[in-house]
Amino acid sequence: MAVTDRVKQILSWYSSENPGTLTNLVRLLDHGALAGTGKLVILPVDQGFEHGPVRSFGPNPDAYDPDYHFQLAIDSGCNAYAAPLGSLSVGAATFAGQVPLILKLNNSDTLAKIDQPCSAITGSVDDALRLGCVAIGYTIYPGSGQRNHMYEDLKELTREAKSKGLVVIVWSYPRGSGLSKAGETAIDVTAYAATIAAQLGAHIVKVKPPSAHIEQEEAKKVYEKYQIPIATLAERIRHVVQATFNGKRVVIFSGGEAKGTDAVLAEVRELAAGGSFGSIMGRNAFQRPRAEALKLLADVMDIYRGPAEAR
Amino acid sequence: MAVTDRVKQILSWYSSENPGTLTNLVRLLDHGALAGTGKLVILPVDQGFEHGPVRSFGPNPDAYDPDYHFQLAIDSGCNAYAAPLGSLSVGAATFAGQVPLILKLNNSDTLAKIDQPCSAITGSVDDALRLGCVAIGYTIYPGSGQRNHMYEDLKELTREAKSKGLVVIVWSYPRGSGLSKAGETAIDVTAYAATIAAQLGAHIVKVKPPSAHIEQEEAKKVYEKYQIPIATLAERIRHVVQATFNGKRVVIFSGGEAKGTDAVLAEVRELAAGGSFGSIMGRNAFQRPRAEALKLLADVMDIYRGPAEAR
Amino acid sequence: MAVTDRVKQILSWYSSENPGTLTNLVRLLDHGALAGTGKLVILPVDQGFEHGPVRSFGPNPDAYDPDYHFQLAIDSGCNAYAAPLGSLSVGAATFAGQVPLILKLNNSDTLAKIDQPCSAITGSVDDALRLGCVAIGYTIYPGSGQRNHMYEDLKELTREAKSKGLVVIVWSYPRGSGLSKAGETAIDVTAYAATIAAQLGAHIVKVKPPSAHIEQEEAKKVYEKYQIPIATLAERIRHVVQATFNGKRVVIFSGGEAKGTDAVLAEVRELAAGGSFGSIMGRNAFQRPRAEALKLLADVMDIYRGPAEAR
Amino acid sequence: MAVTDRVKQILSWYSSENPGTLTNLVRLLDHGALAGTGKLVILPVDQGFEHGPVRSFGPNPDAYDPDYHFQLAIDSGCNAYAAPLGSLSVGAATFAGQVPLILKLNNSDTLAKIDQPCSAITGSVDDALRLGCVAIGYTIYPGSGQRNHMYEDLKELTREAKSKGLVVIVWSYPRGSGLSKAGETAIDVTAYAATIAAQLGAHIVKVKPPSAHIEQEEAKKVYEKYQIPIATLAERIRHVVQATFNGKRVVIFSGGEAKGTDAVLAEVRELAAGGSFGSIMGRNAFQRPRAEALKLLADVMDIYRGPAEAR
Amino acid sequence: MAVTDRVKQILSWYSSENPGTLTNLVRLLDHGALAGTGKLVILPVDQGFEHGPVRSFGPNPDAYDPDYHFQLAIDSGCNAYAAPLGSLSVGAATFAGQVPLILKLNNSDTLAKIDQPCSAITGSVDDALRLGCVAIGYTIYPGSGQRNHMYEDLKELTREAKSKGLVVIVWSYPRGSGLSKAGETAIDVTAYAATIAAQLGAHIVKVKPPSAHIEQEEAKKVYEKYQIPIATLAERIRHVVQATFNGKRVVIFSGGEAKGTDAVLAEVRELAAGGSFGSIMGRNAFQRPRAEALKLLADVMDIYRGPAEAR
Repeated sequence: MAVTDRVKQILSWYSSENPGTLTNLVRLLDHGALAGTGKLVILPVDQGFEHGPVRSFGPNPDAYDPDYHFQLAIDSGCNAYAAPLGSLSVGAATFAGQVPLILKLNNSDTLAKIDQPCSAITGSVDDALRLGCVAIGYTIYPGSGQRNHMYEDLKELTREAKSKGLVVIVWSYPRGSGLSKAGETAIDVTAYAATIAAQLGAHIVKVKPPSAHIEQEEAKKVYEKYQIPIATLAERIRHVVQATFNGKRVVIFSGGEAKGTDAVLAEVRELAAGGSFGSIMGRNAFQRPRAEALKLLADVMDIYRGPAEAR
Repeated sequence: MAVTDRVKQILSWYSSENPGTLTNLVRLLDHGALAGTGKLVILPVDQGFEHGPVRSFGPNPDAYDPDYHFQLAIDSGCNAYAAPLGSLSVGAATFAGQVPLILKLNNSDTLAKIDQPCSAITGSVDDALRLGCVAIGYTIYPGSGQRNHMYEDLKELTREAKSKGLVVIVWSYPRGSGLSKAGETAIDVTAYAATIAAQLGAHIVKVKPPSAHIEQEEAKKVYEKYQIPIATLAERIRHVVQATFNGKRVVIFSGGEAKGTDAVLAEVRELAAGGSFGSIMGRNAFQRPRAEALKLLADVMDIYRGPAEAR
Repeated sequence: MAVTDRVKQILSWYSSENPGTLTNLVRLLDHGALAGTGKLVILPVDQGFEHGPVRSFGPNPDAYDPDYHFQLAIDSGCNAYAAPLGSLSVGAATFAGQVPLILKLNNSDTLAKIDQPCSAITGSVDDALRLGCVAIGYTIYPGSGQRNHMYEDLKELTREAKSKGLVVIVWSYPRGSGLSKAGETAIDVTAYAATIAAQLGAHIVKVKPPSAHIEQEEAKKVYEKYQIPIATLAERIRHVVQATFNGKRVVIFSGGEAKGTDAVLAEVRELAAGGSFGSIMGRNAFQRPRAEALKLLADVMDIYRGPAEAR
Repeated sequence: MAVTDRVKQILSWYSSENPGTLTNLVRLLDHGALAGTGKLVILPVDQGFEHGPVRSFGPNPDAYDPDYHFQLAIDSGCNAYAAPLGSLSVGAATFAGQVPLILKLNNSDTLAKIDQPCSAITGSVDDALRLGCVAIGYTIYPGSGQRNHMYEDLKELTREAKSKGLVVIVWSYPRGSGLSKAGETAIDVTAYAATIAAQLGAHIVKVKPPSAHIEQEEAKKVYEKYQIPIATLAERIRHVVQATFNGKRVVIFSGGEAKGTDAVLAEVRELAAGGSFGSIMGRNAFQRPRAEALKLLADVMDIYRGPAEAR
Repeated sequence: MAVTDRVKQILSWYSSENPGTLTNLVRLLDHGALAGTGKLVILPVDQGFEHGPVRSFGPNPDAYDPDYHFQLAIDSGCNAYAAPLGSLSVGAATFAGQVPLILKLNNSDTLAKIDQPCSAITGSVDDALRLGCVAIGYTIYPGSGQRNHMYEDLKELTREAKSKGLVVIVWSYPRGSGLSKAGETAIDVTAYAATIAAQLGAHIVKVKPPSAHIEQEEAKKVYEKYQIPIATLAERIRHVVQATFNGKRVVIFSGGEAKGTDAVLAEVRELAAGGSFGSIMGRNAFQRPRAEALKLLADVMDIYRGPAEAR
């Protein structure tokens, strides 16, 4: 399959990476229903680890089975499937070559009280290679007092992943004693979190859709002085894309907790209008019955594929 | 000896492991009285380290001798014998090849006051190879503030063990400031602990039989909303097996402190009815006189071997 | 291009370095509008990471694009461009060979509350080599309780960088519980910070223009007893140059926050009069419209190039 | 010299060790006045480090000289001489081959206030090899909050020492916030400390002679329920030997602070009666004038050599 | 130049070191005005780092220049010149082969508030080799809660330095929460500090001249019981020499802060009378005008060279 002009353009922003990494970036961008469009929809399933099994899979018990998610990602035409070491290991051989895989390299649970949030590293770059993955995933919590620990671990994993031809995807979730609860999704903080992930060397950045709240006083002055538009979600998405190296790094948005189909699609339309490169959609996909999930994912992909004046 | 269909089915869930690890998994499943059934009974003896010598072996002084346990595991037809470095070293050459061995790689004692529970690493993967073991064992305490430390050490040991063809067995014991005392064996917490161990890459997961208590508010809502059955121990075991990758990882249960023979067997019947892959039985075995212990273990194996509609 | 006598003189102070490092030092000194003069003006852009995107680039949105800064550094004739891993990666191939690059190896953000200031290491010496850089940059915070951590990380990075032929540039910014706010730019503290950076092995030291405040009682006695002149900025610069191995290490000064053109140039005249080896100018360059920035940088370079009796 | 049956029996308990380690074990057991008996008397001199020079050597100033101790160990027919890196280095070449040497790999001093006791590692396994030693020595403090740190360092040193053919001797001294002062030498704690050392892989365990005090409630119940005899020192020694893998690891006892000759010999008679494998005697040896020390050590060895019904 | 009998005698105490280290020890002992006498006077200049530039060099501004100290050490006939990485790098090539060099491998500054004193490692053994040094220098603070950290870093540096043929010199300065201010120079503490340094493997130990104060109760009893003479400085020096392996390790004394010439010489006479192997003299040398410094150093060397009954 020939690489489209849009994908070539995206590749041009990553020109300091080696051919191995570029190859895996193409594999991500050229797989599934959105292949070649420069848009991505990814299925991530780390909620069993992050929230516990019953909260994650109680609503749709078929989803207790790791193989369920492989098949859902394949059948829905997602660009990739992301999961931690254990569940990825169950199906990696069975579904080898059918969908690009992302090994989520760090994870947290809700059983322990941890003062300053920090996930544990639960897999290695070599595990990702061994399992046939195209990318590693890693979560940082900007705002945490454990910031340096996380950034430095990511630095080392990124160095190794790039040298071995993998793509690096960073989940950037502000949280910790430096931030209020509202601040975790504030527009200034979300834009900042996207910048940090990109500066740390991420090829693909994942953040949450930002609210209109502004957390930092110094930032507020600048938004006001230069009248930067952040009233609508689409405007805020555009601002975050700009903050991610002026759009020269792929930035995608998560959907958050399960909600109604209309709400999901309305939000995705705003994301697309703001120039998002795509969505990463977990609970809204796997907590629905399979048929509903396939329909929803198809509709989401349609929105990203369709003509969007904001691109 | 030909590999049975059931063992082949179990192996199919581990298809991303290398042949060395699969070989050792077969050695575990195809040894002893339960060989080929897909069920396991393991003799673990780390109580000398964990509780001290007199509490462990005072009731049956023959058990002060490490060789006693090798012989007990062999004569009872256990699938394997698990112990820390020191005591395993005493008999490893003497009993070479007579029973699969598991090197317990971390241990704790009751002499020190430790704020957040965390065992010390007391052996290495290369020790396990040197002593002829088929597997390593490692204890995690989900709920401890030292969670990341333990998960990351396990991550590294797991990576090394798998690359050297060993099986990884994780004791997952929730404990620490994140949990109430009742929460340590709560059904939601036990299921969560099994998921975590599986996600960390364990081939075999060991948890305690769960109570009907639910520790986490968010989890409680889900159990109630979806009316998930957890009233009987068999139901709870079935839930834990489901939480362990829908039964695609071997999960076994410990027996806890020494108790009457009837109580032990009643509990094991529930475990078997719930679909447990087996038991790991320490104090209830080695603190009884040898003849009684052999009888009890034989009865336990009978329960697992016999027809159980819940499997 | 022949190496000038002044550059040869500077090289003589680095005679224990290997030819690879000397070569990169010449590349820095012999590039741009000040080539061969022994003076340097460097464009640093790490504010996206350090202060967040909107505070950094809101005033001049073209600057959200990492390529903007490469072009600005090239067109203005700066000796070098310094940035963190992510943004340097965007343009390193595009602009290969057009301007000496400095990889900023550690960075901090303003989202987290950190007790004792310490930046995270966000890149490696091998990244610098891979991206074609001539130097690494590293920030220390003398006065922080994390001092040893930073000095020791720098020690190791310096050792590696020198062995691989790179130049080492240290940003020495006193801060932390050991110092008052005024003390962070005190003359005694600034001179001390320059000494520390030089002792740690820096080839080029970057400090802030010092105030006339004296922070340490013991130091105050010496300034008074020996009547050391520190009344004017030029005198203080001369003192800092003296404290930097009697002028045998290149020491340059930052411009601080954005301010009026007259104020910038007035300060630079004092720096030059005091014998500064040059300036490192970020916000005052990239937050201005491009044409104004080019004009300002040209004026700054003129001051350094022009006859200055204090040299 | 032929290996005696008793030494062969002892070697049989170490059958998983490599021939290099077995060789050094024989060197220890077959040197000096007790060669071939399976009993050991070792001269340890780390008190200069642990208690300071004047408290250690003020009573007998000749002992300031490290060579003094080599000669004393040789002339008295001790099985081995143990000391830290510095003092062992002074005489290792001079006295090469005249007495088996043990390099004490960690040490503490009394100058610092340390919350949770933990010695510093002050030498390496390669130092032991370089100096011609047969064994390494290492102190653990079970009961300390630094337990994991010490056990894990020992784990690594043990792994390396064994792979290089050395014997591992562990000083197991309970102490720290988990224990009362009386608890440090309690019978339950001492037996537990011996078990821990053996489980960590020690070939030879050194503990203090235990008192009749019982520290842990749970242990007390077991001593009482099973009427385990611990009234006399000989009974307690027998219990500790039992707790050390039922006598399948060599366990020896220290003499503690300097005391009268009669008191020393009375205690050693109890140790021997209880089945101790020997003594490690420092201050009671080197703080006496040389002639007295030689006499005392000869008497101690006579007790161990002579017929003892308890062996 | 033939090695004198005295130097041969000193070498005999280091017989377990390899020829490379012995060679560098001879280079130290056989250089300068005291060559062959077995006495040493060393010029150390780390005060720029430790106390800041103005306090160190304000009194004699020529000393801001690192080359000044090389020339002073050469012209005065010192046995060696010691300095941190940065300033040693300036002149190492210029003055190559003219004076033995010591790379000071750790350093502290007075800008930060550090709870428990601990210097940062600021150079490496390979830096020492690269710069042509004969020795490394390292400071420990016995009495600090960071004791283990420092001792273990030194252990590793010592191992590496010895394996590469370098001499190890330890500055042993008691300080930290375990000690009173007076205790830092107490006779018992100073003797203890010298022992610790020697036990850690130092070839040359540097301590401060001790006061008659006794810090530790347990030590006081011994001084009194055995009537150990510590009334005069010469007696105390003799005691410290005895505590340093009975004189079988070279121990030298620092001069402390700048003072009058008479006071310096009076102190040195006591040091020499007590059997000190020499002096290490920084501020009293480089803070004087060069001519005065040369005169003072010559007088000091005369004292050490001249007949002293106490040797």
